Amino acid sequence: MTPAKEECAGIVICAAYADGRRTGDIKLDDIPQLLRRDGAFVWLGLYEPDEALMQRVQQCFDLHDLAVEDAHKAHQRPKMEAYGDSLFIVLRTARWDDSAETAAYGETHVFLGHNYLVSVRHGASQTYRPARLASERQPQLLAHGPSFALYALMDFVVDNYFPVLSAYEDRLDELEADIFSGGADRDSTEEIYRLKRELVTLRRASLPLVDVCSDLMSLRVALVPDSIRPYFRDVLDHLKRINDTLDTMREMLATVLQVSLALASVRQNEVTKALAGWAAILAVPTVVFGLYGMNFDKMPELHWHYGYPAIVVATFLVCVWLYLRLKRTGWL
Amino acid sequence: MTPAKEECAGIVICAAYADGRRTGDIKLDDIPQLLRRDGAFVWLGLYEPDEALMQRVQQCFDLHDLAVEDAHKAHQRPKMEAYGDSLFIVLRTARWDDSAETAAYGETHVFLGHNYLVSVRHGASQTYRPARLASERQPQLLAHGPSFALYALMDFVVDNYFPVLSAYEDRLDELEADIFSGGADRDSTEEIYRLKRELVTLRRASLPLVDVCSDLMSLRVALVPDSIRPYFRDVLDHLKRINDTLDTMREMLATVLQVSLALASVRQNEVTKALAGWAAILAVPTVVFGLYGMNFDKMPELHWHYGYPAIVVATFLVCVWLYLRLKRTGWL
Amino acid sequence: MTPAKEECAGIVICAAYADGRRTGDIKLDDIPQLLRRDGAFVWLGLYEPDEALMQRVQQCFDLHDLAVEDAHKAHQRPKMEAYGDSLFIVLRTARWDDSAETAAYGETHVFLGHNYLVSVRHGASQTYRPARLASERQPQLLAHGPSFALYALMDFVVDNYFPVLSAYEDRLDELEADIFSGGADRDSTEEIYRLKRELVTLRRASLPLVDVCSDLMSLRVALVPDSIRPYFRDVLDHLKRINDTLDTMREMLATVLQVSLALASVRQNEVTKALAGWAAILAVPTVVFGLYGMNFDKMPELHWHYGYPAIVVATFLVCVWLYLRLKRTGWL
Amino acid sequence: MTPAKEECAGIVICAAYADGRRTGDIKLDDIPQLLRRDGAFVWLGLYEPDEALMQRVQQCFDLHDLAVEDAHKAHQRPKMEAYGDSLFIVLRTARWDDSAETAAYGETHVFLGHNYLVSVRHGASQTYRPARLASERQPQLLAHGPSFALYALMDFVVDNYFPVLSAYEDRLDELEADIFSGGADRDSTEEIYRLKRELVTLRRASLPLVDVCSDLMSLRVALVPDSIRPYFRDVLDHLKRINDTLDTMREMLATVLQVSLALASVRQNEVTKALAGWAAILAVPTVVFGLYGMNFDKMPELHWHYGYPAIVVATFLVCVWLYLRLKRTGWL
Amino acid sequence: MTPAKEECAGIVICAAYADGRRTGDIKLDDIPQLLRRDGAFVWLGLYEPDEALMQRVQQCFDLHDLAVEDAHKAHQRPKMEAYGDSLFIVLRTARWDDSAETAAYGETHVFLGHNYLVSVRHGASQTYRPARLASERQPQLLAHGPSFALYALMDFVVDNYFPVLSAYEDRLDELEADIFSGGADRDSTEEIYRLKRELVTLRRASLPLVDVCSDLMSLRVALVPDSIRPYFRDVLDHLKRINDTLDTMREMLATVLQVSLALASVRQNEVTKALAGWAAILAVPTVVFGLYGMNFDKMPELHWHYGYPAIVVATFLVCVWLYLRLKRTGWL
Repeated sequence: MTPAKEECAGIVICAAYADGRRTGDIKLDDIPQLLRRDGAFVWLGLYEPDEALMQRVQQCFDLHDLAVEDAHKAHQRPKMEAYGDSLFIVLRTARWDDSAETAAYGETHVFLGHNYLVSVRHGASQTYRPARLASERQPQLLAHGPSFALYALMDFVVDNYFPVLSAYEDRLDELEADIFSGGADRDSTEEIYRLKRELVTLRRASLPLVDVCSDLMSLRVALVPDSIRPYFRDVLDHLKRINDTLDTMREMLATVLQVSLALASVRQNEVTKALAGWAAILAVPTVVFGLYGMNFDKMPELHWHYGYPAIVVATFLVCVWLYLRLKRTGWL
Repeated sequence: MTPAKEECAGIVICAAYADGRRTGDIKLDDIPQLLRRDGAFVWLGLYEPDEALMQRVQQCFDLHDLAVEDAHKAHQRPKMEAYGDSLFIVLRTARWDDSAETAAYGETHVFLGHNYLVSVRHGASQTYRPARLASERQPQLLAHGPSFALYALMDFVVDNYFPVLSAYEDRLDELEADIFSGGADRDSTEEIYRLKRELVTLRRASLPLVDVCSDLMSLRVALVPDSIRPYFRDVLDHLKRINDTLDTMREMLATVLQVSLALASVRQNEVTKALAGWAAILAVPTVVFGLYGMNFDKMPELHWHYGYPAIVVATFLVCVWLYLRLKRTGWL
Repeated sequence: MTPAKEECAGIVICAAYADGRRTGDIKLDDIPQLLRRDGAFVWLGLYEPDEALMQRVQQCFDLHDLAVEDAHKAHQRPKMEAYGDSLFIVLRTARWDDSAETAAYGETHVFLGHNYLVSVRHGASQTYRPARLASERQPQLLAHGPSFALYALMDFVVDNYFPVLSAYEDRLDELEADIFSGGADRDSTEEIYRLKRELVTLRRASLPLVDVCSDLMSLRVALVPDSIRPYFRDVLDHLKRINDTLDTMREMLATVLQVSLALASVRQNEVTKALAGWAAILAVPTVVFGLYGMNFDKMPELHWHYGYPAIVVATFLVCVWLYLRLKRTGWL
Repeated sequence: MTPAKEECAGIVICAAYADGRRTGDIKLDDIPQLLRRDGAFVWLGLYEPDEALMQRVQQCFDLHDLAVEDAHKAHQRPKMEAYGDSLFIVLRTARWDDSAETAAYGETHVFLGHNYLVSVRHGASQTYRPARLASERQPQLLAHGPSFALYALMDFVVDNYFPVLSAYEDRLDELEADIFSGGADRDSTEEIYRLKRELVTLRRASLPLVDVCSDLMSLRVALVPDSIRPYFRDVLDHLKRINDTLDTMREMLATVLQVSLALASVRQNEVTKALAGWAAILAVPTVVFGLYGMNFDKMPELHWHYGYPAIVVATFLVCVWLYLRLKRTGWL
Repeated sequence: MTPAKEECAGIVICAAYADGRRTGDIKLDDIPQLLRRDGAFVWLGLYEPDEALMQRVQQCFDLHDLAVEDAHKAHQRPKMEAYGDSLFIVLRTARWDDSAETAAYGETHVFLGHNYLVSVRHGASQTYRPARLASERQPQLLAHGPSFALYALMDFVVDNYFPVLSAYEDRLDELEADIFSGGADRDSTEEIYRLKRELVTLRRASLPLVDVCSDLMSLRVALVPDSIRPYFRDVLDHLKRINDTLDTMREMLATVLQVSLALASVRQNEVTKALAGWAAILAVPTVVFGLYGMNFDKMPELHWHYGYPAIVVATFLVCVWLYLRLKRTGWL
C-alpha cells in the first residue's frame, strides 16, 4: 500500500461523491472499489503530476494512451476528444497578473467518465477550489454525476477570461485616447502590435471552447444529462460574449492602426506646411537684406537718412502680414 | 396579501387577456389562478425590478434559475434560449438622443410561455405602451396567444433602430462632404473612428436578432402558431434591411478611411510641390543679389548708371516668368 | 360599377389570358368572375396606385395584409415571400440615364398566384410593355400560367442591369487610364469613391435576386411548372454574370485605390528628389557668392583681373556638371 | 440533300464512333439514322457556325432552345446546365500568345447526350484535334460513350491553362526582383495592377469549372459511367492546383503592393534624410560667409593676415566632419 | 526472374508483415503470392523509382493508371483519392535545412490497400525508417493492417513540419525586434515578404492534409479499423495546431507590415520636423548676418565698439533658446 505522503506530491484533491454530496477524501488505491458503486463518483484534482503518478491514474480509470500522452505535453490546443465512453478535454486557463500587467496562461486537461472527473493543471492557473465549493453547494445538480463538476470547472475557467478581456479593453481605450490627443507615435504603434498579439493569444484560448461547449450540449452519449445541458449553454453564452468582444476589439484595433496611419499623414502635412510657411516668411528678409548688400555704385536707398530703419521696419511688417495670412489659410 | 402600492415599484403593467381582448389589470397573486383558465394569458411588464419582485415573478411563472439569473445582469448579448416549453429572449433596445447626438442603449428580457409574456426593461429604453396598444388593436391576432404580443414588442424594438441608423447615415454623408471639400484632417479622421465604433455597437444589437427571428419562425414547439409566423418574417425582413445597410456603411467607411489616406497623400504632394516651386522662385533673387554682393575689384555691372534698377527689374521678370511656368505645369 | 376612367389612374394594363393567348382587357370588377375559369389568368399592371385602388386589388385577389403593406412602402430589399399559395416578390429596377450619367433606381412589387400576376411599379422604372409583348409571342409557354409572365418581367428587369454595369465598366477603364497616365489626384480619388458607392447600390439590387431565382427554380409548390424552370435558371445565370462582374470590379477598384496610393508615394518621392536636387545645384552659387562677399582685408582673388568672370563661369560649370550628374542618377 | 461543300463552312469534324472506335466521317443528314443504332455515338465539332447550321444541328440532336441561344452569344460564364437527359457545358479556353505576351481567351460550348457530343468553338482557341486523337488511342474507355470524349476535351482545355499560369508566375518573380532591387516605381506599380487584372480573368475562366467537374463526378444521371468518373476527378485535381496557385499569387500580389508601398516610404525617408543632411552641411559655409560679410567697423578677424584662408579651411573642415558624422548615423 | 541487384535501384524496403510482426524482406516477384495469405501485408518503400519499376509495382498491386501517372509527376497537391478499394495519398514532406536556413520540400505518394502499403518518395525528404521502426514497436496495432503503417508515415511527415514552423516563429520574433528597435528598413521589408512566401508554401503542404485526415477518420470503407481512427485524429490535431499557428503568423505578419508602414510614417514625421527645426535655427544667423551685410550709409550698430561681438553673441543666444524650445516641443 502506498503511503499518503508520497501520493500528495501531485494530488490536490481526491474526493468521493455520492448522491451529489461529498462523502470524504479517499486514496488512489481505493478508487477502483469505489467506481463499482452505484451513484458514486470520484473527483481527482492533480497539479503537474509526475509520470509515475499519471501511470497509476491511467490504470485506475483505464484512460486511453493517446489522451494520457497529450496530458503530458504542454501547449495543446483546447479541444474535446471522445475515447469510447470517456471524454478528454483540454482547456487553456488565463489569469490576469496585475503587477506584470499581462495575462499568464496555463493548461488544464480533464478526463471525464460516467463516474469520475480527473483534472490535471499545468502552469500559471489558479486552484479550482472555488469551483468545487460552488458545485458542492448545489447537491441536487451534482447528483446527476461528474458532468456538473465539469460545468463548474469550465465556468470557472471561462469566468477568469473576463478580467483579462476587461484589462485589454482598458488598454484599447487608453490607446484611442493617446492617438487622438497626442497623435500616433512610436510607442502607440508598438502598443497596437502588442495588444493585437495578446488578443490573438486570448482568442486561441477561448474560440475552440465554443465547439467544445456546443459538442457537450448536443452530445449523443449519456455523459451529460438533459438537466445539465442548459448549464453548458450558459458557458457557451459567456464564450460567445467573449469572442464577440474579441472580434470587435480586433476590428477596432485594425481601424486604430489605419487611423493612426491617416493621422500620421495629416500630421506630416501640417509639419510640411509649417516648414513651407516659415520658409516663405524668412525668404522676405533674406531677399531684402541680400538686395541692399549689393555693391552697385548707384543705389539711392542706401544714402537715404532713414533708409536703414525704413527697410528693416518694412521687411518686418511684410513678415507680419505674411504670418497672419498664412495663419488664416491654415499653413501655420 | 401584498398591497398594490408595494407591487407598483417595478411593475409597469400586469394585464389579463382573453380571446385577444384585455379583460383588466390583475395582481401578482391572482396570476396562478388566471393561468389555469383556457384561452387567457397574462402580460406582465417590469422596469428594473428588485430581487424580491423577481423572485415572486419566478414563482408565479415557474421560470428557470439560469434565465432569471441572466435577467438580473445587464450587458447580455441578444439571444433566445428555450427552457422546457418556455422561451427566454434578450433584446437590446436603442434610442436616438437628439440632444446628445448619440444613441442610448438599453436591454429588455422577455419570458414567453404559452399563456404569459413577461418583459423586463433595463436602462435607457422607451416604454412599450405603444407596442401594447398596437397589438390590442388587432384582437383576432392577439387571440392566438402571447406570441403576437412578443411580435409587437420585437417590432417596436427593431423599428427604434431605424432613427439611429438614419442618423449614422447622415453622419457618413457629412463625413464624405467634409473629406471631398476640405480634405482629410484630424477631426474627420476621429469622426471616422467614432462612427465606426457606433456602427459596431448597433450591429452587435441587431445582428444576433436575425437568428432569434429565424428561430421563432421555424420553431418546432407550438408557442408561435402558423398564422403569426409571417409577422416574425416581417421583423426579420426589417432586421435584414438594417444589417444590409450597416454592412454597406462599414464597407463605405473603410473606403472613406482609405480614400482620406489617398487624399492626404495627394495633398502632401501638392504642399511639397508648392514648397519646391516657391523655393525655386526665391532662389533667383538670392543668387543674383549674392552675385552682386561680391567684393571683386572689377565688376563692371556695379558701375553702370542703371545697373541697380536693371538687375532688380531683370530679377523680378525672371521670377514672374518662373512663376507662370510653374503655375502652368501644376507645381504652384 | 366603377367607370373605366377612374380606374385608369393607376392601372397600366388589366388583361385576361386563356391558354396562353390574350383574350382582351377587362375591368377590375370582372376579375373575380374570371379567376373562377379554368386555364385563364389575369395580368394586372399598376403604376404607383393610390391606397383605394390597392384595397380593391387586395380584395380581388385576396392578398395578405403584410404583403400589401410592404407594397405601399418604397425602399424594400429585393426578396420573395410565400403567403399561403401565393408569392410576393420585390424587385429593384435600374435604368441608365445617359444625360445625368447615373443610374436611376425604381421598385416593382409582384403578387403571383396560380391564376394572376399583379405588378406594382414605383419610381424611375420603365414600362413592362416590351416584356409583356415578348411573352405573348410564346403562347405555348404562357399557357403554363402566370409564372412565365413572371419570368418575362424578371428577365426584363435583369437585362436592364447590363447597360448600367457596362457604363460602370467604362468608368473603371477611364479611371485606370487617368491614374496610369496622369497620376492619382483629387478628382480620380473622388471618382473611385463614387464608383464604389454606385457598385454597392447595384449589388444590393442584384445580389438578393440570386436567392429569389434559386427559390423559384426549386420551389416545392406548383406555381412554377417544370417546363418553365429552365427559364428562371437562365435569369439566374444572367444574375450570376452580373454579380461576378460586380465582384471583379469591386476587387479591381480596391486595387486601383491601393495602386493610386502607391503612385502618390512614388510621385512624392520624385518631387522630394527634384526639390533636393535643385537645392543642391543652387547651393553652389549661394556658397561661392557668399564666399566672395566676405570683407577680409586679404582676399587675393578679389584683386585678380579676371577674378569676377572666372568665378562666375566656374560656378556655372559646376552647376551644369551637378545637373548632369543628378539627371543621370535619377534625382532630377 | 445538302452538298458536303456547304456543310464544311462551320464543321470541323463529324465522325461516327462504335464500340469506342471511329467508324468514319458522316454527313449531317445521316446523323438521325446513326443515333438510332446501339453502342454508336456522333462527335460533331463546329467552329463559329452560322445560324442556319446551328438550326440544323439543333434539329438533328433535338437541343433545347435556351442552350442553343446561349451557344450563339459569346462571353458566357463557364457553367453546366442539364436539359432533360442532355447537358450543356460552357468552357473558356486560354492560349498563351508568346509574341503578344498575353493570354488570348476563347469559348467552347459543348452539348452532350448519351450518344452524341457537339462542341462549338468561338474565338482564339486551339483545335481539339489533339484531344480527339488522344481519346481515340483509348478505345476501351471511349466505348463507354461520349462522356470520355468530354473528358478529353476538358482535360485539353484545362491543360492549356498551365502555360498561361506559368507565364504569370514568371512575371510575378520578375516583379519581386524589380521591387527589391530597384525599388517600387511607376512601371512596377502599373505591372502589379495589370498582372492582378489578368489573374482575375484566368480565375474567372477556371474557378467555375471546379463546380462543373464536381457535378460531372457526382451526377445522378447515367451520362457519366462509374469507370469514367475518376478521369473527371483528375481534371478537377488539375483545376484545384490551378486555383490554389492563383489564390497564392493573388495573396502574394497583394503583399507585393503593400511591400512596395512600405519600400516607397522607406525610400522617402532616405531622400528626406539626405536632403536634411546636405542642407545641414551647406548651412555651415552660408552662416560663416554671411558672418564675415557683415560691415561692422570693428571685426578683428577681417584684418588678420591669414584670416581669409583660415576661415575657409576651418569651414571646410567642419563640413567634412559633419559629413562623416551624418554618414555614420545613416543620414547620408 | 529479376536478380535482387537490379531491383535495389529504387527499392528502399520491401517487407512482409504477419499479425503485426515483420516476417522478413521479400522480392517483388513473391508479392502476389504473399498477398493471397490472410493477416499478412506488404510494406514497400520506393525512392524515385524509374518507369520500369513502377510498372512492375503497378502489376503487383493492380494499381489504377491515373494514380500511377500522378505518382510519376512531381508538384502534386496533397490529396487523397479512392480507386475502388484502394487509396492513393499525396503528402508533401518538409525538412528544415539548418545550413541554408530554409525548408526543403519533397513529395511522397502512398498507395494503400487492405494488405499493402506502397510509399514513393521524391525530392528532399528524409527516410521513413524511424516511422517504420516506431510502428513495429506496437505490433498489437500493426496487426490491424497497413492503415497503422500509414498513420506512422503521416505522423512522421507532420512531426517534421514543427521544426520548420518553429524556425519561422523565430524569424518573426527577430523581425518584430528589428522593427521596434531600429525601425522598418529595406531589409526588414524584404524579410517580411520572404517569410510570407515561405508561410504560404508550408500552408499549402499542411492545409490539404486536414481534409485527408478527416476523410481517413470517417471513411466508410473498412481500410481504417475503428481502433486505428483515434490515431489519425491525433495527426489531425497536430495539423490543426500547425495551421492555427500558421494563421496566427499570417495575421501577425500582415500586422507587422502595416505597423512597419506606420513606423515609417512616424519616422518620416520626425525627420521632417528635425529638418524644419534646424532650418528655423539656422535662419536666425542667416537673417541677422544678412542684415548687417547691407550697405546703408547710416547703420549705427555697425559703428558701435562692441557691435560685432554683441550681435554674434545675441544671435548665438537666440539660436540656443530656439534649440531648447524646439527640443521641449518635440521638434528636435
